[in-house]
Amino acid sequence: MSRAFNFCAGPATLPEPVLKQARDEMLDWRGTGMSVMEMSHRSDEFVAIAETAEKDLRELAGISDDYAVLFMQGGASSQFSTIPLNLLGDKTSADYVNTGIWSKKAIAEAKRYGDVNVVASSEDSGFTTVPEQATWNTNADAAYLHYTPNETIGGLEFDFTPDSGDVPLVADMSSTMLSRPVDVSRYGLIYAGAQKNIGPSGLVVVIIRKDLLGKARKETPTMMNYQVIADNGSMYNTPATYSWYLAGLVFKWLKEQGGVKAMGEINYRKARKLYDFIDANDFYANPIEPRFRSWMNVPFTLADDALNDEFLKGADARGLLNLKGHRSVGGMRASIYNAMPEAGVDALIQYMTEFAKERG
Amino acid sequence: MSRAFNFCAGPATLPEPVLKQARDEMLDWRGTGMSVMEMSHRSDEFVAIAETAEKDLRELAGISDDYAVLFMQGGASSQFSTIPLNLLGDKTSADYVNTGIWSKKAIAEAKRYGDVNVVASSEDSGFTTVPEQATWNTNADAAYLHYTPNETIGGLEFDFTPDSGDVPLVADMSSTMLSRPVDVSRYGLIYAGAQKNIGPSGLVVVIIRKDLLGKARKETPTMMNYQVIADNGSMYNTPATYSWYLAGLVFKWLKEQGGVKAMGEINYRKARKLYDFIDANDFYANPIEPRFRSWMNVPFTLADDALNDEFLKGADARGLLNLKGHRSVGGMRASIYNAMPEAGVDALIQYMTEFAKERG
Repeated sequence: MSRAFNFCAGPATLPEPVLKQARDEMLDWRGTGMSVMEMSHRSDEFVAIAETAEKDLRELAGISDDYAVLFMQGGASSQFSTIPLNLLGDKTSADYVNTGIWSKKAIAEAKRYGDVNVVASSEDSGFTTVPEQATWNTNADAAYLHYTPNETIGGLEFDFTPDSGDVPLVADMSSTMLSRPVDVSRYGLIYAGAQKNIGPSGLVVVIIRKDLLGKARKETPTMMNYQVIADNGSMYNTPATYSWYLAGLVFKWLKEQGGVKAMGEINYRKARKLYDFIDANDFYANPIEPRFRSWMNVPFTLADDALNDEFLKGADARGLLNLKGHRSVGGMRASIYNAMPEAGVDALIQYMTEFAKERG
Repeated sequence: MSRAFNFCAGPATLPEPVLKQARDEMLDWRGTGMSVMEMSHRSDEFVAIAETAEKDLRELAGISDDYAVLFMQGGASSQFSTIPLNLLGDKTSADYVNTGIWSKKAIAEAKRYGDVNVVASSEDSGFTTVPEQATWNTNADAAYLHYTPNETIGGLEFDFTPDSGDVPLVADMSSTMLSRPVDVSRYGLIYAGAQKNIGPSGLVVVIIRKDLLGKARKETPTMMNYQVIADNGSMYNTPATYSWYLAGLVFKWLKEQGGVKAMGEINYRKARKLYDFIDANDFYANPIEPRFRSWMNVPFTLADDALNDEFLKGADARGLLNLKGHRSVGGMRASIYNAMPEAGVDALIQYMTEFAKERG
């Protein structure tokens, strides 16, 4: 078929111009006679690709020189251990907010390295809301405060940046990164698995305030030591060069789209349109408290679960792919990251309208 | 330019048919309307890609069901910590052989987790030889015996498989993997960074005897726990899907070439031809004891180091790329992995002949 609209939560759809450029440069990058994936990571060509990617990311996300930007391997899941191993330092505990499956994974891993204080949880609500910060039981002596601004499985998203006082704020922005403006200066550390808004899987971007470097526990694997990775420009070992290159192409594309402010407006509009449709149509439902609905991941259910397979089959036939909800929650989920064009959301709504009319 | 002969030690040149297929499938993998890098790692399509790659690798390398095959992230350098964290178990020490820079890196990292017994070292020789096994000071109670069959920087290679008795034998086969037949049953664990003979960087293949699973130390990051990775089919988190796909294409290509036996014959011939030329020409030299010369990485020096830059410039102009030796040793290095055609070695020898005639 021609290019489909792919609503996968990650690995996610990528901008078509990025894929076309990657295709055209596959056998011979700009007259070098090599693919980027065949280049020495220490070559002038690749170092330029890597540095340009970092520069563009800094510009897009507004990252000051007070922060190191690391291009690491292992995805966000590796960061669940890397963070406590590096940031606990001589503190004994860290604060975590529990708003869903990814929060819980981060919490479980952190507990293996220190005391975890779950300052708030919306588990009782079925993770349909975010606890108001006034109710959080934070610890002023915590090593850091960790939260998950967007839960990709539940489709729950913070509409505020927590105030962590002097405690470094740490955020898993895997699905939020670059989807709208974020004030990086509010954070001690931001991490993002690439396979949502950045590039292919196998890469994780870490933005860390430089004063938080150098506190790794002695048993920290060297490849997980932020200071070592920062000191070596993310080339302590051979990095995931091709993924880094593709991330750079995505950053260029984002700049051409007008940057994160423009993306934020488009993303808000895409999400708003889909939620408005769901709310207005009795056949579909989304359980999340409206103000905390995710702009990136829109879960929804049909009036009758017995129609799920038919819904998915019809969607597939129209090139609307990967709408099945995560196995842990069921139903449907439309992930509408940066690279999902508004036309994809329109096509989905069109299909949902027709399906509800015929089968509702 | 057209495709060059790229002698980079890694990331290394890839087979041209693999790159062409990747290019042709970039925007739409077999009518799915998606690039492989946009597919859910849990989709039927990607799971089939992943399983086929593992099946082909098992067939190529002769890996029995007694072994798990893991597709992990972080490269061989992450394995330097992952191995002791998983294999030390209730033992207090591990044996390591020191034959060069990569051995030393593995040793340094292992020392952070237990006692390392360096059973033999060829450092006194400048790493130009491999210590005879009869001289090794092995410990029958070691958790494992680690060695580096091929030192990519020094160009030093074992011409024998160590006999480790009942102690599991562990090998960094980053540059040896799939270059010739290997008797996997002699090993407890084999690991290989992909960027030499397998695919792009960011992927590391681990072949582990199943009885060695389940002994991870409690502080082991979950993403480094072999048992967890094995139990989840290397999908505990989102794996490096695109690299895994490319590895699968390389495996298919290897099968078409006749498998590792055929590759071994070609690789032996390529290396032999180059070393014979170097030995026969007074202008060039290789310092390694002949029986331990690497088939994969051929370092050589010119009679006059002052000519190095001119040599490299002339090579570049002919499309013979990345011949500069590693910064730690200087001189030249030609890496001639599986994907380097014999014609590349012939072109290099032709150039070396002419350069020596003109400047020697």
